[in-house]
Amino acid sequence: MDLAPSPLSRAFPQLRAIEGVTLRVARARYKNWDRADLTFAELAKGTSVAGVFTKSACASSEVEMGREQVTLGLARALIVNAGNSNAFTGYRGREAVEQIMAQVAEALDCEPSSVFVSSTGVIGVPLPKDKARDGVAAVLESEPCGWEEAANAIGTTDTFTKGAGASAMLGDTRVELAGIIKGSGMIAPDMATMLGYIFTDAAIEAAFLQEMLSKANEETFSCITVDGDTSTSDTVLAFATGKVGNAPLTSWEDAGADAFYAALLEVCRELAHLVVRDGEGAQKFIEVAVSGAESDESARRVGLAIANSPLVKTAIAGGDANWGRVVMAVGKAGEPADRDKLSIGFGGVWAAKDGQPLADYDEAPVAKHLQGQDIRMDVDLGIGEGRAKVWTCDLTHGYISINADYRS
Amino acid sequence: MDLAPSPLSRAFPQLRAIEGVTLRVARARYKNWDRADLTFAELAKGTSVAGVFTKSACASSEVEMGREQVTLGLARALIVNAGNSNAFTGYRGREAVEQIMAQVAEALDCEPSSVFVSSTGVIGVPLPKDKARDGVAAVLESEPCGWEEAANAIGTTDTFTKGAGASAMLGDTRVELAGIIKGSGMIAPDMATMLGYIFTDAAIEAAFLQEMLSKANEETFSCITVDGDTSTSDTVLAFATGKVGNAPLTSWEDAGADAFYAALLEVCRELAHLVVRDGEGAQKFIEVAVSGAESDESARRVGLAIANSPLVKTAIAGGDANWGRVVMAVGKAGEPADRDKLSIGFGGVWAAKDGQPLADYDEAPVAKHLQGQDIRMDVDLGIGEGRAKVWTCDLTHGYISINADYRS
Repeated sequence: MDLAPSPLSRAFPQLRAIEGVTLRVARARYKNWDRADLTFAELAKGTSVAGVFTKSACASSEVEMGREQVTLGLARALIVNAGNSNAFTGYRGREAVEQIMAQVAEALDCEPSSVFVSSTGVIGVPLPKDKARDGVAAVLESEPCGWEEAANAIGTTDTFTKGAGASAMLGDTRVELAGIIKGSGMIAPDMATMLGYIFTDAAIEAAFLQEMLSKANEETFSCITVDGDTSTSDTVLAFATGKVGNAPLTSWEDAGADAFYAALLEVCRELAHLVVRDGEGAQKFIEVAVSGAESDESARRVGLAIANSPLVKTAIAGGDANWGRVVMAVGKAGEPADRDKLSIGFGGVWAAKDGQPLADYDEAPVAKHLQGQDIRMDVDLGIGEGRAKVWTCDLTHGYISINADYRS
Repeated sequence: MDLAPSPLSRAFPQLRAIEGVTLRVARARYKNWDRADLTFAELAKGTSVAGVFTKSACASSEVEMGREQVTLGLARALIVNAGNSNAFTGYRGREAVEQIMAQVAEALDCEPSSVFVSSTGVIGVPLPKDKARDGVAAVLESEPCGWEEAANAIGTTDTFTKGAGASAMLGDTRVELAGIIKGSGMIAPDMATMLGYIFTDAAIEAAFLQEMLSKANEETFSCITVDGDTSTSDTVLAFATGKVGNAPLTSWEDAGADAFYAALLEVCRELAHLVVRDGEGAQKFIEVAVSGAESDESARRVGLAIANSPLVKTAIAGGDANWGRVVMAVGKAGEPADRDKLSIGFGGVWAAKDGQPLADYDEAPVAKHLQGQDIRMDVDLGIGEGRAKVWTCDLTHGYISINADYRS
């Protein structure tokens, strides 16, 4: 099934090379297709690593091993397989990952534990070891390539190629960040999974890189939803080669730490938004801004309850400023809320305040706003200082067509 | 918008009259329509009452007051307004409810607190007091009617009329139960809400009636989902008139308590199923049977995660035995699970066992089963003794059409 590019797609940006990162792709032919589906990033010695992973209790071997590997803090290579997620494949799945780690480690003369592996695609079929072996051999010999080629090769059912970059000044030293991501919801046939990789030439101690990535994740990847479903393989890794030669960042007190975090946050946010923009059947990008909650975490949960509500998402699809459905979604979130203090608006215009519809509510500008592609919803709970932004897309006939009409 | 009856609809059953219950309906014209939209059940003196209500933090005044009223344990009347949910209407909404309670209490010479009020329909518009006053006056004067007429009058966007009955032997005394319900998901424009009422001529102490209703609710109404969304007004009330003259049931030790509970559970289960059968756009009724969970409650949560997954629901809509999506839904449930002990089947045939696809899996009978209207899914977690059944419907283009294409 070839899908037209999402109407919310963005052109792939100009991304600078990151010193200490060499990208290569090859054809492992994990599926019966003629495209690069195996991606290799070679990383300079001393590269530190951090990661965030799906909370799924049924995670893939790649995720189980990755969770352990990041605690060691060192990375020399990344391998991404596209077309087969290797999830729900038991010990045979684990063996395939270990084979790849050993093969790359031997070629680079490094520890297998510093070789990170991700896989995305069909569930329940063990990654074929022969194809993986030949593919890895081929990718080790292939020519270096650019960001867009790598971003393409990690994709499965993505309708456009996704990347984001930023830079930051650590004192007088300019550092670069570049990121690529794949994902478009849990799409048929189980071509699931969000996989994101961020690279920087800054030197950052692994523990602090993890602290920053985890914090950025809470405000970005953890705040997006397409259909509320969670992949068994979701992974975001950050690699810092240190090749720019700055004094390694070790804590928030270090000069430049805040600047670097701001750049990391920007890259994470853009990558997260791109995944939503490729949501199955999406016609509108929706930002839900929640304020006045008991805490930021509570605000995030309320925002996700709204963003995951099929009734809210179908209302937006229909261009309907249906604030009653937003009330319903706030009510079911299971978070502190007071019906009589709740305010709801669309596109900067309040429709209801303090638990009642506004008498002078002017629907015309709201209706116009809802005709657009970028929708803003404001929800003020009126009981505290907690805030969060959450992003999603609308729920359309396109989603049903992709997920129900197509047989795996 | 007039919808065709759901393909999963059931004919309204023959229900016996319940001594001590008199039903009447009238036209309050809460909307611009010509149909009965105000329902009145007069209950014999001494009728005990129990209730379960939405957990929404943004509940309507009717729900807030009902939660208090059931603690008193006595009911003389029920009023149900259809066409206006009176939710999210602040103090004006509460005043309308209090007016109805006072008016009925005066007519019946009873305490206002024994008059129960429910409302269902559009959110955010206070129930018009004048229409309520005239409607209540009219209904008090109208001729008694039967179950089907009352079940029709409480409905809003329901595509068929829903009722269920049962009987039980308390020693030599036969007692009757009759129930009616409305609800078909949170349907446009905010004609939300599941409202269910169960009546019996048995004598049952209010506290014990509450215990039985709460227990039955956990296995029935709390185990259904159409789209995962929760109304601000969901309510189920049970009334026991005692007119059959049995020695009042006060605890599980009493003779006949188990028999009565079995009948109550049967009525609750059938009413709950009927709501799912009227799910928006539903083409298939789905039973998810979870076993081997850490506890029954954990099994229920896993079942609801599966039943609420848009990807699982669209797969069933497409007749696709997509067990990979079920793995995904189990993983995201946040409950104890072990990928390598998980088994999944459809229509009594296992597709995956102990974390791996079955080598000799025969898809033909499964594909045939999925062509039908009644779908059974088995999920064994393999880690404990907890069990639950959960019911839902598939997610189809019909759901999108009803909720997105139609403007409120």
